[in-house]
Amino acid sequence: MKLVSSLDFGDGHLEKLKQKFNRIDFYIYNNIEEAKEQLFDAEIFVTYGFDINEELIEKMEKLKWIQCMSTGIDALPLNKLREKGILLTSVRGIHGIPIAEYVMAVILNHRIEAFRFYEQQKNKIWKRKADLEELFGKTICIIGTGTIGKEIARKAKAFDMKTIGVNTQGRSVEYFDELYSKADLNEALSKGDFVVQTAPLTKESYKMIGIEQFKKMKPTAFFINIGRGQTVDEKALIEALEKKLIKAAAIDVFEKEPLAYDSPLWTMDNVFVTPHISGLSDMYMNRAVPILEQNLRVYLYGQGEYINKIDLEKAY
Amino acid sequence: MKLVSSLDFGDGHLEKLKQKFNRIDFYIYNNIEEAKEQLFDAEIFVTYGFDINEELIEKMEKLKWIQCMSTGIDALPLNKLREKGILLTSVRGIHGIPIAEYVMAVILNHRIEAFRFYEQQKNKIWKRKADLEELFGKTICIIGTGTIGKEIARKAKAFDMKTIGVNTQGRSVEYFDELYSKADLNEALSKGDFVVQTAPLTKESYKMIGIEQFKKMKPTAFFINIGRGQTVDEKALIEALEKKLIKAAAIDVFEKEPLAYDSPLWTMDNVFVTPHISGLSDMYMNRAVPILEQNLRVYLYGQGEYINKIDLEKAY
Repeated sequence: MKLVSSLDFGDGHLEKLKQKFNRIDFYIYNNIEEAKEQLFDAEIFVTYGFDINEELIEKMEKLKWIQCMSTGIDALPLNKLREKGILLTSVRGIHGIPIAEYVMAVILNHRIEAFRFYEQQKNKIWKRKADLEELFGKTICIIGTGTIGKEIARKAKAFDMKTIGVNTQGRSVEYFDELYSKADLNEALSKGDFVVQTAPLTKESYKMIGIEQFKKMKPTAFFINIGRGQTVDEKALIEALEKKLIKAAAIDVFEKEPLAYDSPLWTMDNVFVTPHISGLSDMYMNRAVPILEQNLRVYLYGQGEYINKIDLEKAY
Repeated sequence: MKLVSSLDFGDGHLEKLKQKFNRIDFYIYNNIEEAKEQLFDAEIFVTYGFDINEELIEKMEKLKWIQCMSTGIDALPLNKLREKGILLTSVRGIHGIPIAEYVMAVILNHRIEAFRFYEQQKNKIWKRKADLEELFGKTICIIGTGTIGKEIARKAKAFDMKTIGVNTQGRSVEYFDELYSKADLNEALSKGDFVVQTAPLTKESYKMIGIEQFKKMKPTAFFINIGRGQTVDEKALIEALEKKLIKAAAIDVFEKEPLAYDSPLWTMDNVFVTPHISGLSDMYMNRAVPILEQNLRVYLYGQGEYINKIDLEKAY
């Protein structure tokens, strides 16, 4: 049985999988271009989900299962997979910790004005600043209260922040002081000193944060996007930052990635741009590979349940 | 009764104090130079504690009480105060929150390699990095388990870090997983992925972190000093960073402040230098002035107890 991967999950992990699943022939590559060598008769395909399209799927005649090693499955040709009856699983749930660490990092970076002092250091300038604003008592509004949103809220509570969450029905979730339904999004946004977008990309969330939403935010608000770029209207974000509808932002995901060389976001002094790194860490494969392993066990032997089997009707 | 302050605690706070204490004449300045106008017949002197020396104290013939608006009282001429029987009080205990926020900020800054991505942004470089090391599961060794150390440990627990504390006897303290006595300092240091110096400056803590201690630390350790510069042998720190005995550092306090223009620390690429800002924030006076107010009440009317009255024998 042939498994092709367009990503390398590390020699240690691979050796263990080979020992456990000797019925499988593993073909592991660093990217889709290399993988094409063996791709077209693969039965199982392992991918980050960004490198495959309808045309390739058509050519993969033996394909039965795609294990996406990301949380977001929006870049996969979901309709084609449904049409062909291909099983899709993800590693949703493993990003809470690294992404929450990233979010608290950019919030605290803003809190201590780290780049100001970094530039001062370069110029050997000893200049104190007494009015740095504490996180203590500030409000964080988190859109999405899943694994990631909840982990951010947990950490924010250790900084004595007030935590506001937004989810479909406004149901209560641990670590959140107040919950709002999606219908009351704008009201929730108006309360945030920090606003964090964690929502996955779906039909409903596409450009859910536009100019209207930025206008509702505080002029002192700090906006963070770590979900998917297309959940935010990027032109509206740029306008909001230019016109100071909000104070500043840290943006890890963009409408198109890599971010275009001529995007104004690169050079605005109130934006911190990072190249979609918030979910990456040295622990990634330690959490993702066990999901692949369990799913292989189900696929081969029918043992237990698939982890994160995607409902291709709901695309979630 | 004459009160002279070499620091401005804000009009709002001053007005309230004037209303409450109409027996006192308040003379508020921005620094000691300006304050000299009224200083020499002051009965009460309010200071950050860095601007006064034995000579000035000698000239202040009516001085009975110094309210230090800092935690550290090490720069004050303590022997002279004791000799003259002058009361000394501090605002110890108000720095836990801002300093713990600063410490988590520089730790998380290191975690996401924020300056790397800041430089990449300047050059419009989209380059991801997959091996960023999570805080999750890392060990933080905190020297000093008072208000500041404890608040750092509390926040570190929200990042699922292991917290090790060092205090005189190794007594247990909330939020710390393990405690070591001062005698076992070197062993504690050897376990830290992050090492934070919070100890106040006393005879015992003077240069307590020297080359021997840096040699005990992990070569991957990140060292943070937010206490007093003189608790660390600065030459040894520079050597440790040059020879990579430790990986990197964030240093907010120095043997001499401002940091000398020719200090190698300014230009080392594995050090983040900040100008003694970790305790500063917009909330500072909101926490410090109520202590002054309570102490004024004791001084004038004998109501209650002084907050943070310093024992000039122990200098603590």
